[in-house]
Amino acid sequence: MPEGHDAVKFLLRENDIPTAWYNIVPDLPFDLDPPLHPRTLQPLGPEDLLPLFPMALIEQEVSRAPAVDVPGRVLDLYRQYRPAPLFRARRLEQVLNTPARIYYKYEGLSPVGSHKANTSIAQAYYNHCEGVRRLATETGAGQWGSALAMACAMFGLECSVYMVRVSYDQKPYRKAMMRVYGADVTPSPSPKTAAGRAILASDPESPGSLGIAISEAVEDAVAHEDTKYSLGSVLNHVLLHQTVIGLEAQMQMEMAGDRPDVLVGCVGGGSNFAGLAFPFLKPALAAARRRHSGTAQRAGQSTPQGPRVIAVEPTACPTLTRGTFGYDYGDTACLAPVAKMYTLGHGFVPAGIHAGGLRYHGAAPILSALVRHGFVEARAVRQLEVFESAVTFARSEGILPAPESAHAVRVAVDLALEARETGASPAILFGLSGHGHFDLGAYESYFAGQLKDYDHPQAEIDRALASLPKA
Amino acid sequence: MPEGHDAVKFLLRENDIPTAWYNIVPDLPFDLDPPLHPRTLQPLGPEDLLPLFPMALIEQEVSRAPAVDVPGRVLDLYRQYRPAPLFRARRLEQVLNTPARIYYKYEGLSPVGSHKANTSIAQAYYNHCEGVRRLATETGAGQWGSALAMACAMFGLECSVYMVRVSYDQKPYRKAMMRVYGADVTPSPSPKTAAGRAILASDPESPGSLGIAISEAVEDAVAHEDTKYSLGSVLNHVLLHQTVIGLEAQMQMEMAGDRPDVLVGCVGGGSNFAGLAFPFLKPALAAARRRHSGTAQRAGQSTPQGPRVIAVEPTACPTLTRGTFGYDYGDTACLAPVAKMYTLGHGFVPAGIHAGGLRYHGAAPILSALVRHGFVEARAVRQLEVFESAVTFARSEGILPAPESAHAVRVAVDLALEARETGASPAILFGLSGHGHFDLGAYESYFAGQLKDYDHPQAEIDRALASLPKA
Repeated sequence: MPEGHDAVKFLLRENDIPTAWYNIVPDLPFDLDPPLHPRTLQPLGPEDLLPLFPMALIEQEVSRAPAVDVPGRVLDLYRQYRPAPLFRARRLEQVLNTPARIYYKYEGLSPVGSHKANTSIAQAYYNHCEGVRRLATETGAGQWGSALAMACAMFGLECSVYMVRVSYDQKPYRKAMMRVYGADVTPSPSPKTAAGRAILASDPESPGSLGIAISEAVEDAVAHEDTKYSLGSVLNHVLLHQTVIGLEAQMQMEMAGDRPDVLVGCVGGGSNFAGLAFPFLKPALAAARRRHSGTAQRAGQSTPQGPRVIAVEPTACPTLTRGTFGYDYGDTACLAPVAKMYTLGHGFVPAGIHAGGLRYHGAAPILSALVRHGFVEARAVRQLEVFESAVTFARSEGILPAPESAHAVRVAVDLALEARETGASPAILFGLSGHGHFDLGAYESYFAGQLKDYDHPQAEIDRALASLPKA
Repeated sequence: MPEGHDAVKFLLRENDIPTAWYNIVPDLPFDLDPPLHPRTLQPLGPEDLLPLFPMALIEQEVSRAPAVDVPGRVLDLYRQYRPAPLFRARRLEQVLNTPARIYYKYEGLSPVGSHKANTSIAQAYYNHCEGVRRLATETGAGQWGSALAMACAMFGLECSVYMVRVSYDQKPYRKAMMRVYGADVTPSPSPKTAAGRAILASDPESPGSLGIAISEAVEDAVAHEDTKYSLGSVLNHVLLHQTVIGLEAQMQMEMAGDRPDVLVGCVGGGSNFAGLAFPFLKPALAAARRRHSGTAQRAGQSTPQGPRVIAVEPTACPTLTRGTFGYDYGDTACLAPVAKMYTLGHGFVPAGIHAGGLRYHGAAPILSALVRHGFVEARAVRQLEVFESAVTFARSEGILPAPESAHAVRVAVDLALEARETGASPAILFGLSGHGHFDLGAYESYFAGQLKDYDHPQAEIDRALASLPKA
């Protein structure tokens, strides 16, 4: 490799950690449909959410303030691993022989190896402040469960994690990590909850799913006076907490003297994507509001529209690209709030062959609406090309990406290769949401040729979509 | 947990990455015994090392310069993950209710999760500059193999890793990581080398050992014109590269307005320990040189002696605390250079029950001599207390330590608890050399009650020591 083409890091100083989260809601040029009560299908009031969340988070969930202050103790904990670096991927550019400039914002340096700590710390803090003693949550492969377990340890909260059984059995390591942090980990479906017992009654061998585990965690929280529920993605307040990613990235792109033409992030529930993208969407949203309100532009005045924004998901769980935009339950047992979002149906379960995470049947309501209104494009990618790009990235940049994050790598690589064809030289910024040190089993399967590409069959999606509530 | 007692991070700016490594050799108040040729047992000349190492590293191995410049490209790659943070462990102090001030220098943010990248990058660079096409090395659990594989990918070198068979079979994940970086991984002992074949002939089921894997890698390098050998610890130039750790830590302790009274690091071969400790040993070494040369101190002038320095090893591989200080081979097959060091005998193999790494039979010659001359204390700790402290640390500081690094955590905790008894308030600085995200299997065994404390039987150590060369 020729000299002088190594990665360039743009590292902020500690004082540059954002002290307020960015709330996109007041900037949206459209109204969001309200979440509904799972039993009545009537709009939810804050009081309906009180069994699940502390008041501070409920307020954030419905807030229309343009920004929300980051509490000092949360900032203190952010400072352990933030500001997160933003890199120019010069070696990757070289390997791809592309005129594109590729940047990535790296969230893998948190104690739990992913962006999830940005919200788990905030959520544990607010619960702690309101006297909550215990949090219940669900986890798939364990990324979110580990992050919440860590944050609970920081604030002396108990943590009860319902872990999708197939992961619990096949991935004992993440379970061990949650136990290091003192969490109680239960394979889901479990006999501990009515939701779990119902599933087990009809299928004692059920491998579980995120939707089922959410049902169990919600039920646990409702059943215990001292317990609240915590979700690692999807909800407005979770997306809010993640905006530290994009706010830092904006400062870092400025340091780099560049502006992203395209922005890419992977989507499971949408929180890492939103965290990076939302602050960059401001100009496009403002322009749309002006169009809406008929505010004339003066002649010759150009409006900065901000970057093109692409959300990437797996073809094995194609929520944004093949789902329906409509009201659906957040969980399998229909205990969680009903939200207007892109969904594959709350009974949807991705195929076992899929190794790359991002398995939730729905997507964050705000993100869904942004896709629906054309502010965000959605793309689905297949897993073999995802792992191939992950390997290319690791060999050129040194960092081994989480398979989830590698979905964003894939599309960034595709855009860079397109640029080579067209001769354009766009600045591409993507989110590298976590490292893959926990996911080497998936890489092992990839090298062993055990992974296959998988497009979910339409008939199954249609079947799952038939279960949407008639709101 | 009360407010306002979170960890405090001392983060240098990028420009503060040391641009020269610190060479302790000219500061030593004693002479080092020369390494010997494994066949002749005569002092080694640089020409004897040429089949194994590029000239730049041979020069560093014997250098008496007080400092060695870090090449620009190595600095560029260091900048991807350095400066590494130094933390004040306020929450740990609170949990321990100690008057001690506890600091730790954290090396787990490198792309491979440990300090090993500090030397793998430098070694790959120098080999690349001298036209080497391929590097051969050994690895135990895979930490060093991953680090060298990553660095080779950065410089376009091939990488051949001999991995101790028991780890190869039981830890497929690290193998997958090396493969992501493009390395070729062979279980050792292997039929590829004469050394491997000899072992297999006498024991076809041999689980392998670091000593055997070193023999194979050395033989591979000698047998191939385009291949050199690379070692991840022990050698002078490896320790030299790691001094970026201590040089940064010195600046950071100054930022903290504090000075360490005690310094603690874990020891396998000794490179992470040396990297942190050597820069802090300067005043003690200078004072000893003055005593040696009879330079009088003026009355009333106090000499800064620097901190007390403690090297920590497992009781399962007690090189510094129960080994002999003498000449021994670096490997099992007696192909590697013979060095004067603390050793348990080159045939020593730690018991399988030991889960915490740090399994090498010897220790770095410079470190060994410092222990021998009383500049460094050595302590051995048992694995159950090590894992116990690792869990305490993770729950208070958020970072999950590698089991190796947790040996240092244990002694830091012990010192902090002692301080509570004595009422002293020392500043304790320890090295946290890597994260434990790869080592969750060991934590799982710990929680499952499968780990036992293990003091290696004296008879076996005596037997292994009987194999020392008569130099």
